[in-house]
Amino acid sequence: MTGTNPRRSAAHPRPDMTPADHAELALLLEVASTPKPGNVDRHRDHDDLRFEHFLTGAVGSRPGLELAGRVDGSGNSSDGPPAIGDAFERAVRGMSQQSGGNTQFGCLLLLVPLVRAAATDRLSPDGLTNVVEATTVDDAAAFYRAFEHVDVAVGDPPADAPDLDVRRGADAVPTLRERGLTLADVMDLSADHDGNAAEWTSGFERTFAAASRVLDDDGPLPDRLARTFLDLLAERPDTLVAVEHGRERAEAVGREAAAVRGDLDAAEELAGRYLDEGINPGTTADLTAATAFVALERGVEL
Amino acid sequence: MTGTNPRRSAAHPRPDMTPADHAELALLLEVASTPKPGNVDRHRDHDDLRFEHFLTGAVGSRPGLELAGRVDGSGNSSDGPPAIGDAFERAVRGMSQQSGGNTQFGCLLLLVPLVRAAATDRLSPDGLTNVVEATTVDDAAAFYRAFEHVDVAVGDPPADAPDLDVRRGADAVPTLRERGLTLADVMDLSADHDGNAAEWTSGFERTFAAASRVLDDDGPLPDRLARTFLDLLAERPDTLVAVEHGRERAEAVGREAAAVRGDLDAAEELAGRYLDEGINPGTTADLTAATAFVALERGVEL
Repeated sequence: MTGTNPRRSAAHPRPDMTPADHAELALLLEVASTPKPGNVDRHRDHDDLRFEHFLTGAVGSRPGLELAGRVDGSGNSSDGPPAIGDAFERAVRGMSQQSGGNTQFGCLLLLVPLVRAAATDRLSPDGLTNVVEATTVDDAAAFYRAFEHVDVAVGDPPADAPDLDVRRGADAVPTLRERGLTLADVMDLSADHDGNAAEWTSGFERTFAAASRVLDDDGPLPDRLARTFLDLLAERPDTLVAVEHGRERAEAVGREAAAVRGDLDAAEELAGRYLDEGINPGTTADLTAATAFVALERGVEL
Repeated sequence: MTGTNPRRSAAHPRPDMTPADHAELALLLEVASTPKPGNVDRHRDHDDLRFEHFLTGAVGSRPGLELAGRVDGSGNSSDGPPAIGDAFERAVRGMSQQSGGNTQFGCLLLLVPLVRAAATDRLSPDGLTNVVEATTVDDAAAFYRAFEHVDVAVGDPPADAPDLDVRRGADAVPTLRERGLTLADVMDLSADHDGNAAEWTSGFERTFAAASRVLDDDGPLPDRLARTFLDLLAERPDTLVAVEHGRERAEAVGREAAAVRGDLDAAEELAGRYLDEGINPGTTADLTAATAFVALERGVEL
């Protein structure tokens, strides 16, 4: 009824949950996990971006996540399942029905292909590579249109491609079509400086590695995800921090995360400080949501 | 795609959200609202019943909420929409896919008829009375079956009706059929001592009154809901506290809530103490979720 549930084993702790259900739950668990220094979490709000905006964004994004999880092709396309780009744009539009602004754009950019892979029983690096390689110019156009629903903090476009600035929204679509760029191509242009695009072009390498660590870890899932957030932040500079504060600051944040890695009490101090300083490692939160999704699909207990 | 969205005005802040969406969001906002003395909230867990169990319960209950919101009759019943009782049982079964136990049984008992009324554009005391009066013996049977999915703390059955103890689950169904008891009849038997049953038999009187107060209140919605929780707790003894600690203690809790009414800072102290003492006004939390749903449907901002 609400997406396709691919051969979920009866031993799975959530036998009736579809990939779309798990994606929504991943969004909720991500924002609930604490401390995630610099991000809204169970214990911290930003001034105008609060916990309840994330809850609302998660529920609102469902129709798009369900499109991503639909693989039977019925009702939405003359041949084949709904397009990944349309699913993403629908998710972002639904997410935007709250006044906090951009809550989960980056999370959804990762979750949509992950849901599609899970719904076709290919939730693996190879499966994700297949999903990414199958994207089309239409998917790229839908991705650009999604920027019209919400303000997203992004870096400048490649110097040789000013026409492809995502901030142009639908105005960039003619350029996409002229150049025949698929969504995979668009991600490829940003993969060297954007952590989410890098997942698209690497078979979601960091997501799968982090999910394995979550499955091997102990304790309540939100605590595991908070530890994963610190790991991810320590291992590579956060894209959003680099966009907003420069590469040097992003690298310093990575070192500070490394210093408190594995120690959630020590991370509390960092969380207070980043909130005061306006340091928001949002891309690392996106990766944490993606990690939660893979861990949920693989049967992590709740 | 995910339920029916009845004539939601374009001026509504969440034009694309269906009643099922709002019901799920109400569950999330209820658990996020803090302080709600004695209940799991954004800042407090119980030992084995934690915030994440409520998030999981909310997502898991969706298929049942969607059945409640489906009014076109397609796919689930030969004539007419899915039965209210089946929707409730499905919601409880989905909710139970987590290890915390009973997270939202009572919330769902209120939300299912509210969703049905909203989906048919009759979200009013009269509309709820119609939904309740239309229930059947099959609905009552499904209600009893729902108790087999999760342990629910309940009081003893009426002295003259030991066969109708809900803890008997499906074993009570032959008695229901013999006596021709509808779900409305079952609620009627408990309405004098059970706050949720009393809503069923009164056109959801307290829910609608509280929702009006929420709409007139100011500030972030979770704060409004926390104030509503205190109001509701002050105005009538909580059923679950009465079941677990006796009527006298439930009345004392009401007086303590009245003393901090309107003052969330003062309620923080109460929240800490009730957690230590194992006082859990869960029925008042159920009413708070129902209140959130009506406020969401009526366009409260988020």
